[in-house]
Amino acid sequence: MFTLFSLKNGLENVPGFFCDAVNVGMRTKPADAADDFQLSGDVAFIRSDTPCNIAAVFTKNRFQAAPLRHFQRYPKGFQTNFVLINAKNANAMTGEKGIEDIDTLFERLSQKISLTNPVMSSTGVIGYRLDLEKISLAFDAFDYGANKSDKTARAIMTTDKFKKELCFRVELNNGEAFHIAAICKGAGMINPAMATMLCFVVTDATVPADEMQEMLQDAADQSFNRISVDGDTSTNDTLMLLSNGKSGVYDAEAFREALERITFELAMLILKDGEGASKLVAFEVKGALNDEEAMHASRALSNSLLVKTALFGEDPNWGRIASTIGASGVACDDSLLTIRYDDLLIYSNEFRELDKAREEKAYKIMKQEGFRVTCDLGMGSGSYTSYGCDLSYEYVKINAEYRT
Amino acid sequence: MFTLFSLKNGLENVPGFFCDAVNVGMRTKPADAADDFQLSGDVAFIRSDTPCNIAAVFTKNRFQAAPLRHFQRYPKGFQTNFVLINAKNANAMTGEKGIEDIDTLFERLSQKISLTNPVMSSTGVIGYRLDLEKISLAFDAFDYGANKSDKTARAIMTTDKFKKELCFRVELNNGEAFHIAAICKGAGMINPAMATMLCFVVTDATVPADEMQEMLQDAADQSFNRISVDGDTSTNDTLMLLSNGKSGVYDAEAFREALERITFELAMLILKDGEGASKLVAFEVKGALNDEEAMHASRALSNSLLVKTALFGEDPNWGRIASTIGASGVACDDSLLTIRYDDLLIYSNEFRELDKAREEKAYKIMKQEGFRVTCDLGMGSGSYTSYGCDLSYEYVKINAEYRT
Repeated sequence: MFTLFSLKNGLENVPGFFCDAVNVGMRTKPADAADDFQLSGDVAFIRSDTPCNIAAVFTKNRFQAAPLRHFQRYPKGFQTNFVLINAKNANAMTGEKGIEDIDTLFERLSQKISLTNPVMSSTGVIGYRLDLEKISLAFDAFDYGANKSDKTARAIMTTDKFKKELCFRVELNNGEAFHIAAICKGAGMINPAMATMLCFVVTDATVPADEMQEMLQDAADQSFNRISVDGDTSTNDTLMLLSNGKSGVYDAEAFREALERITFELAMLILKDGEGASKLVAFEVKGALNDEEAMHASRALSNSLLVKTALFGEDPNWGRIASTIGASGVACDDSLLTIRYDDLLIYSNEFRELDKAREEKAYKIMKQEGFRVTCDLGMGSGSYTSYGCDLSYEYVKINAEYRT
Repeated sequence: MFTLFSLKNGLENVPGFFCDAVNVGMRTKPADAADDFQLSGDVAFIRSDTPCNIAAVFTKNRFQAAPLRHFQRYPKGFQTNFVLINAKNANAMTGEKGIEDIDTLFERLSQKISLTNPVMSSTGVIGYRLDLEKISLAFDAFDYGANKSDKTARAIMTTDKFKKELCFRVELNNGEAFHIAAICKGAGMINPAMATMLCFVVTDATVPADEMQEMLQDAADQSFNRISVDGDTSTNDTLMLLSNGKSGVYDAEAFREALERITFELAMLILKDGEGASKLVAFEVKGALNDEEAMHASRALSNSLLVKTALFGEDPNWGRIASTIGASGVACDDSLLTIRYDDLLIYSNEFRELDKAREEKAYKIMKQEGFRVTCDLGMGSGSYTSYGCDLSYEYVKINAEYRT
């Protein structure tokens, strides 16, 4: 038994971790910015005062960016004490030079602070070398003893409309406690992926090093992987877990729960911040032949342009939902299928045409900021829920104007 | 040897076929229509004065609409003399009742004209029963001896901005000739599919009945299937070929060429009419491990929201193209990859960063109404080209407001 308490702010609650961000001029003030416009940092760090265990889940994109390839050069089970992060440039498709650039940066940084297997994480435009001179300016400007989680969370934002940071204090029944905190960025609507999703989780729980990777993968599968298009992932997506063991406390069940909850809540924040999105919709598919088919149909729904635009248009017609399920290739039968918006039945074999009264109710449900679409295929017991949002004019605007 | 001549107009050039369309009130005048607004028909027919051979390629959607299921009740190799078509209602997800409704319509129609295995084709909203009384009104109003291809082509339009009809006269070297003509509808941008693609091809060539199906499937694979999302197809998509043999002429090579060309040109017209689209882009992938991988990567490009919005934004950066290929899961290596816009190299291992001069040239290419993106993966000899268009504000508007 254990209790999770949400704490204000983020990384600063976890003993032994430090973070800061500065602006070295890669991120510049918009021409139309107000006089009191506060420019966020563009280079940041998260460090541990002792080498800590690290696990990471990376994009499945075959063109992994340089920082991801740099990370994977370290031996399995390595410890680190420093994560360097930059915005505005993804250091992706930069070849071997991109990796050498990271080595050069860490060589310079090592003259300021002692480094153990430092790792890097980048987000921004694909296809350009890092500006080493600019980034190096940060090494003099950083306050290495600071714990500015808010500033760091803002530094990693790109098209995000709000910063994303969370912290839980987890109290076990015996009175012992540990912390888990995370900052995250990502506002790609359909594929947080392609717009790069970065998430850094730190904890003072004494997590067994050899269990971290599996737990982190499980957490990703329950959270960020439920809001992304399968196979349509950016070159830079990264979820990292840093554990320094400072609390001396560990409870497998409590930690797993805290990790899954913090990643799930951040995933929902990414959706809420979805580019141009106005609604968060859970697509629950049940009664599928098996879980895999349920996942396939559920993801087809959350990725369908026609479903997304219908959500934006608040059209209660279930036709696009049924058609998307039929097109997804899973086993289904229109006489067994039922579709619900929240608890309202809007399609079944006995009840195919939507009457005015029910359409009115469906319309009210769709007006909400969040609701659930449940499709029961009636074929078996497989189930899966993915999460999506609507597609608006704003999405097109952002993605036509923003250079990934 | 043979020569193809494009003829003006469409179906009226092919002896033995007749068509007409009327408006029975399912399609209504928009509130803001001008005084001289001409309302298109909503019920149409194409008939042959003798029973003719028919082949059809239907959607792979598991929830095939009632008219498709009705068609497939006929024995293999059946002949028909009548295709009844309606807009505004897809007769999809209507269960057995939807099929019975078609039987009822043909029972009524048989009192006006002699029918041999009549078939139906529908497009419009999913989930509503046909209005049999309204549709039956057409049976009195039709001119069964008319050949109004233009009117028929307009009657099947939904969000299409222009009607689509083509006709070729194919002259063989020995002076013999046959005709092939088609009308088509569809303006779904990414999945012509989901917005229903209908295409009716008629010919007086003496096509061997047992070769029609395979030739039609091949033509679909070279045309409509190159502009649609794999697996994301509507409940009603239909491509039909009707052959009455009136010319007494047949040449396998000439007919195949004519059929492939007419379907390809119509597919390109659908793309040009893409909802909100302003550019037609060919995505050629070559040097893939095999043709299947090339197809997979090519379709990933033509379906990527981020590539499409970048095309709309006329952003010459190749990052989203590379990232989409990497994410598609095909074998690739960033040091072997090259990317070209038309003939302009914009990415290769030796040439990763886009300089100003080349960016300027790329920008000019992207300004065109049509251009080619060629990605050479450098892994093998597989190749495939699919065709797509950009994604604009207009697309969202159409799909948020139109009820499929």
